[in-house]
Amino acid sequence: MLNWDHVFATRMAHMRASEIRELLKLLERPDIISFAGGIPDPALFPEEAFKAAYADIFSGDRAAAALQYSVSEGYRPLRDWLRGEMEKIGIPCSVDNIFITSGSQQALDYLGKLFLSPKDTALVTWPTYLGALQAFNAYEPNYDQLTLTGNRTPESYRAAAENLGGAVKFAYLSADFSNPTGETVDREARERLLTLAEELDIAILEDAAYQSLRYEGEAIPPILALEIAQKGSIEETRTIYCGSFSKTLAPGLRVGFVVANQTVIRKLVLMKQAADLHSSSINQIAIANVAERHFDAQVAKIRAAYGARRDAMLKALATYMPAGTTWTRPEGGMFIWVTLPEGMDGAELLARSVETEKVAFVPGQAFFADRSGANTLRLSFCCANETMIDEGIKRLGRMVQGALAAAA
Amino acid sequence: MLNWDHVFATRMAHMRASEIRELLKLLERPDIISFAGGIPDPALFPEEAFKAAYADIFSGDRAAAALQYSVSEGYRPLRDWLRGEMEKIGIPCSVDNIFITSGSQQALDYLGKLFLSPKDTALVTWPTYLGALQAFNAYEPNYDQLTLTGNRTPESYRAAAENLGGAVKFAYLSADFSNPTGETVDREARERLLTLAEELDIAILEDAAYQSLRYEGEAIPPILALEIAQKGSIEETRTIYCGSFSKTLAPGLRVGFVVANQTVIRKLVLMKQAADLHSSSINQIAIANVAERHFDAQVAKIRAAYGARRDAMLKALATYMPAGTTWTRPEGGMFIWVTLPEGMDGAELLARSVETEKVAFVPGQAFFADRSGANTLRLSFCCANETMIDEGIKRLGRMVQGALAAAA
Repeated sequence: MLNWDHVFATRMAHMRASEIRELLKLLERPDIISFAGGIPDPALFPEEAFKAAYADIFSGDRAAAALQYSVSEGYRPLRDWLRGEMEKIGIPCSVDNIFITSGSQQALDYLGKLFLSPKDTALVTWPTYLGALQAFNAYEPNYDQLTLTGNRTPESYRAAAENLGGAVKFAYLSADFSNPTGETVDREARERLLTLAEELDIAILEDAAYQSLRYEGEAIPPILALEIAQKGSIEETRTIYCGSFSKTLAPGLRVGFVVANQTVIRKLVLMKQAADLHSSSINQIAIANVAERHFDAQVAKIRAAYGARRDAMLKALATYMPAGTTWTRPEGGMFIWVTLPEGMDGAELLARSVETEKVAFVPGQAFFADRSGANTLRLSFCCANETMIDEGIKRLGRMVQGALAAAA
Repeated sequence: MLNWDHVFATRMAHMRASEIRELLKLLERPDIISFAGGIPDPALFPEEAFKAAYADIFSGDRAAAALQYSVSEGYRPLRDWLRGEMEKIGIPCSVDNIFITSGSQQALDYLGKLFLSPKDTALVTWPTYLGALQAFNAYEPNYDQLTLTGNRTPESYRAAAENLGGAVKFAYLSADFSNPTGETVDREARERLLTLAEELDIAILEDAAYQSLRYEGEAIPPILALEIAQKGSIEETRTIYCGSFSKTLAPGLRVGFVVANQTVIRKLVLMKQAADLHSSSINQIAIANVAERHFDAQVAKIRAAYGARRDAMLKALATYMPAGTTWTRPEGGMFIWVTLPEGMDGAELLARSVETEKVAFVPGQAFFADRSGANTLRLSFCCANETMIDEGIKRLGRMVQGALAAAA
């Protein structure tokens, strides 16, 4: 076998397989109750709607276009539909502000590519979406902790980045029901972030993957909506909104989108031309068809199902978790974030779980750019029914209880 | 509007919109005969086969898997089928040597990302596939001219790369019916390239997008097949084979593949996890279904149609082009490469064509990393029937004749 470490680009030293992924593979057995996956419940997919959409493509005169190359910007009717949706959530824009990606993971990769030279700094929350760190790592950045309390000055961010040999380029966050914590950033913190970004002259990457999945409470305007309200036009804004159909319609088609000023959109189109030409023509047509006919009903169905599972998990946590353990109370999304008593280790707990209680979750450390957070766990409540949730959390509680007793 | 040139990564200075693309947009009018597009003829798509494949997905129990997230490596039955195809062309390997991409353009992007640090050198032929240059440009390389005649020593390549501050990382080429020239690299030149790559300790990126489209002559073994024959196992090889379904089945699904040693495959899988998670689940299932049932018949159909169009274009060129103009005689693929008399300019000719003869082609200069080749043109014979080919080449010949007369 060739040893090619010296032939590979320097970036490859930053790209490592996730250790937890290997452990989680062991836990994909039928006797395991899993709260690990960040995937939607396939039982809720709008199968019939997609069946009709693909059949429609081949029964009309659109088959050739569906099978042919298409433009890098994305399918125009899908972008038209998105323009209308954006308007509803306070983001007035034109179709030229909308760019279709192969899932919102691709948006994160492209935005890393667009902004990050090696040694530049990306601001991310501690913890943040693991997939964002993986996407950005390819561009060899440094990370600094994005705090939403306003306790860091622009000057401290700027000085830290310069010390590391680069500049701050963007702040990345998921403002609604974030992966992994499930928490939502309130309106005041969003406004503070806009001020910070203005002072640093950086972009804000607003990851809105979960935004449609609210189960209670009032919607807070997207950061991009707040910025448009301040500045009068999307062309003056620095917030780049990344959306997805993966949590609402289906992830397997790989269709996501970006909404931003046209300077950014044009760069992304150029990048896509060079990187994969365009997202699947046929899938964009199918998504447009299903979105136009079924989006609101589908979102209502998912909200009802996931909302009930969230309630079940919150109830089970209150029932079974020992004192000293805390957790978030998300108003939407897919995740609850558990903080174990200081000194406990989520990865150890998971390794033990394979042997004994057979419940799966994701240890929280992987979500921290600084590898802190060993005593945290991410639980997904989406892919288990209410009985399994009760049983799984009972087992988890028993394991935490046992570990605490052993340490005492 | 924000001026963000200082916020964008340094790589963005290397990514520019193609000037010819703008000009070609003008030429997408119905009154124009186009030999410009590098796209397959949609009339030849296996529409009925794809219609049946998507219907099949939704009538069985595979709909949920088709709509769900899937593994980054790619759909296992598709990789199994490809393993069998590879064996047929002298590339014995396991499914773990096969990785599914979103079209072969994505393979080029990932391979640039895998090997190129800024200032490293990529060896490419003069001319080469424009999309490869666009993909690699994102990683800020230098280019040196790959010659297949053996007239450059390894030392001269190494010294040139070091002078520019990096190292030679790979040689990229399309060995069969290349885009843009239509030419094929003979077996001796393939063997010489393997020796050169060995001496430089670099990878060979073998772009096999057109390999199935041979209209005459004997197939030459792929470079990867020759290397496996030399070394006994794919795990010892340095050739990375990039394939595509875009020219055989349909480009709109965005499904391509890479065949290589497992060290490289594992890195690409890691990269895909970070960049877009996986290629469309549903499209991989559909491609596998259509490939298993219809691949050979479909390829035979395309060969017959494109072969006849190639013949028609070669005949028309011989009839209408003035003395001093030369062209390639491809044994397959989609393109014929025309060299005009010294001093003529393909881009000027195209601009004039909008006004007068209304025939479209691609000026060749864009395919040269050093921007030479102003007096060359790329003609595609795939998307026009034989009458249009005759008429279009007649007009082109008249224009070249006129330009020569004006210069005399």
